[in-house]
Amino acid sequence: MNHLLGTRELSREQAVELLDIAEDMAAVQEREVKKLPTLRGKTVVNLFFEDSTRTRISFEAAAKRLSADVINFSAKGSSVSKGESLKDTAQTLQAMGADGVVIRHPASGAPLTLATSGWIDAGVVNAGDGTHEHPTQALLDAFTMRRRLHGAASRGRGLDGARVLIVGDVLHSRVARSNAWLLPALGAEVELVAPPTLLPVDTRRWPVTTSYDLDEALGRRPDVVMMLRIQAERMHGAFFPNSREYARTWGLDDARFDALPDTTMVMHPGPMNRGLEIAARAADSPQSTVREQVANGVSVRMAALYLLLSGERGAAA
Amino acid sequence: MNHLLGTRELSREQAVELLDIAEDMAAVQEREVKKLPTLRGKTVVNLFFEDSTRTRISFEAAAKRLSADVINFSAKGSSVSKGESLKDTAQTLQAMGADGVVIRHPASGAPLTLATSGWIDAGVVNAGDGTHEHPTQALLDAFTMRRRLHGAASRGRGLDGARVLIVGDVLHSRVARSNAWLLPALGAEVELVAPPTLLPVDTRRWPVTTSYDLDEALGRRPDVVMMLRIQAERMHGAFFPNSREYARTWGLDDARFDALPDTTMVMHPGPMNRGLEIAARAADSPQSTVREQVANGVSVRMAALYLLLSGERGAAA
Amino acid sequence: MNHLLGTRELSREQAVELLDIAEDMAAVQEREVKKLPTLRGKTVVNLFFEDSTRTRISFEAAAKRLSADVINFSAKGSSVSKGESLKDTAQTLQAMGADGVVIRHPASGAPLTLATSGWIDAGVVNAGDGTHEHPTQALLDAFTMRRRLHGAASRGRGLDGARVLIVGDVLHSRVARSNAWLLPALGAEVELVAPPTLLPVDTRRWPVTTSYDLDEALGRRPDVVMMLRIQAERMHGAFFPNSREYARTWGLDDARFDALPDTTMVMHPGPMNRGLEIAARAADSPQSTVREQVANGVSVRMAALYLLLSGERGAAA
Repeated sequence: MNHLLGTRELSREQAVELLDIAEDMAAVQEREVKKLPTLRGKTVVNLFFEDSTRTRISFEAAAKRLSADVINFSAKGSSVSKGESLKDTAQTLQAMGADGVVIRHPASGAPLTLATSGWIDAGVVNAGDGTHEHPTQALLDAFTMRRRLHGAASRGRGLDGARVLIVGDVLHSRVARSNAWLLPALGAEVELVAPPTLLPVDTRRWPVTTSYDLDEALGRRPDVVMMLRIQAERMHGAFFPNSREYARTWGLDDARFDALPDTTMVMHPGPMNRGLEIAARAADSPQSTVREQVANGVSVRMAALYLLLSGERGAAA
Repeated sequence: MNHLLGTRELSREQAVELLDIAEDMAAVQEREVKKLPTLRGKTVVNLFFEDSTRTRISFEAAAKRLSADVINFSAKGSSVSKGESLKDTAQTLQAMGADGVVIRHPASGAPLTLATSGWIDAGVVNAGDGTHEHPTQALLDAFTMRRRLHGAASRGRGLDGARVLIVGDVLHSRVARSNAWLLPALGAEVELVAPPTLLPVDTRRWPVTTSYDLDEALGRRPDVVMMLRIQAERMHGAFFPNSREYARTWGLDDARFDALPDTTMVMHPGPMNRGLEIAARAADSPQSTVREQVANGVSVRMAALYLLLSGERGAAA
Repeated sequence: MNHLLGTRELSREQAVELLDIAEDMAAVQEREVKKLPTLRGKTVVNLFFEDSTRTRISFEAAAKRLSADVINFSAKGSSVSKGESLKDTAQTLQAMGADGVVIRHPASGAPLTLATSGWIDAGVVNAGDGTHEHPTQALLDAFTMRRRLHGAASRGRGLDGARVLIVGDVLHSRVARSNAWLLPALGAEVELVAPPTLLPVDTRRWPVTTSYDLDEALGRRPDVVMMLRIQAERMHGAFFPNSREYARTWGLDDARFDALPDTTMVMHPGPMNRGLEIAARAADSPQSTVREQVANGVSVRMAALYLLLSGERGAAA
């Protein structure tokens, strides 16, 4: 694998390989010295054109545990935009010898442009681009599901037969998009449930089903309920009169949570709006994987950086 | 020791142990390679909800000299506040495998909440919370006094019999509060001198004496005069008509400094308002310990991180 | 060498020594593990009173490839100014055991003050001060020219006989100033061409010639054409009615570029204003050294940090 730009291009084999390596990385983090020398002498640049402290420090921790040098480059607020300036920035990073570039950008497709333009040789990891993809989030979600489903017998397996319900603002969610491609590739059945105005028009070409009523969808007893974060500024006006109305219709409130079987996984990419898309009881329940997702994020990102930057660079894709 | 939240809870034995380890750390910094492998593979997060470049880089230098990986997390300006959000942030750090969290927060008690809530296993160091405590500052002050008093014979000793005068805005000073608990535990006698409006009402329950006239207090020939930083925005209006008036009544000006014996230590936690609470002549005199305090800050913080994060974690408290 | 404050004080021997070490550092960056243990245990502080992401990360990468610990200290926006406060900051860095300080400051002379005041023992590298000097930029320019001129036979050599034309806003350019001293010391002939209002009055005391017509100067067939970055806010009003007018009179546009021999080097310190002082065709041509300059920047900064901070500190100057 040369770059990790999205999950749409990942084969099942590639995805399973990455998840298996993430299992190894998770084991490293159980050790006394949580560190591997694998990427010593490599430089990873966190190139963030949008704020995202959580994602940035997850990648920073992952890179440092592989002994890479990390340079944080926050381009937010600067006048850097997608065209020539991204090119100049890329050439600067190339010239400085960056081996890996983790990029978050408000424009969908910026990581692809960076990776395929010929501007740089570095491995590019998409850490979220516009409303397009956020592949390491989907991979950590898949890793979390696989571990809950198969435990110590996870290696080599996919998510065959698992039924996953993704709930909420799919339209603006790169997390939903990345999961909608990855989970079916791993054998899961994915249903998106959202108000029609918050479902993208092209979902008919995605390997998923869609529906418009949360309670009906929950009644079909999915194995996993993944609540998406709602952005307050997008919810008002056109879609909902207020937060309470959204929570009533689309939130995983106590009543809906209590009606779920004890075995249903409750997922959320964080940060959560407690009381809005998810009630505290659901968020803090044993069924909630929120904390595991964060922990697994470091392991999955270590695996991605390892695949892209270690000796195997250039082998797979 | 599991956490370092304040000096009020420290026994004399714990404080002396920490100061003795800080002596070892000071020795490391005299070496050609100023580095120990002690915390290799550990991750220390600097979680700063208030700006404080000096304190942050002192902790950062301390952690790096122990070979820890350091991640800076500036939460200032974000909407993160004390309740749920601190919980979510804590759980994120926990999930990412943070071994130590150095927290500065505008709310008194935030570090205690972080340490005792069960949200994290990491060792918590209070780097200043509201007007409550700033324990590493008091420890570096004590370390500095002990070295000046006992030199190479410092190990194992306290500050028995030393008379310390703390001058100025005690009300808003977490430095004063931490020293008011620590120094008496080490055997020193502490007097606070301040205008009545700048003395907290509960000082009668502190192991200190209080007074209201700087010149009288200096006339009692203290061994140490510790000037507190005055914050201009707190000085005006209610308390003093202007800076000059404050300096005249409460500043360590040239006349007051000249009247001190040559052996009196002059301390200040920095950054100094030269010409306001302390004149340049006093600040730059051989009696001034300002620079030693900064240097000792790194050693004391190395000792604290060592005690909390190395193999001894969980042993003492 | 104890400090690197400017190129004006550098002898030919010192400059050649630094460029030769930079050749060694460039070789390190071709290796699998791009890292030397040379500065392990040393602390380098990036003390930036002005924003400059590119220069900061170039120094950060250089220091990390020498295994130094790097602490970033962005002082921009704080009330820190040149006088007492720089002193306090310096004393803080000294006390914390900084071995090297890389300083960028809006005030010309701040690095000199820092280095010669006695406040610190650390080696000081000027990363740009006011309109005064930016020595590592000139050194990387010289390194780039030397490599293009002499290739593998560069070691030990200067730039004897090379004719360099520096074009544009010399008045506000610390890059021009540093090159105007360094390149003649290495044996090059330097001509500055600029509108009279953008030439400093004291250039008659510089080891350079000056002229006022770009096309005439290009007609003299220089070996190197170095375009300076124009700052839009300085161009308007007094000097030029608009950007188009500046580009027409002073830009390296397609017509001027096409008229140059294929062997002329085209240099720019970056970031470029494409279409203003330099057209895209010139910037992206094989004659352009822009990317090499960035890559060489890391090597030259590694060499400077090595000379100042390794065992040889105190030997040369």
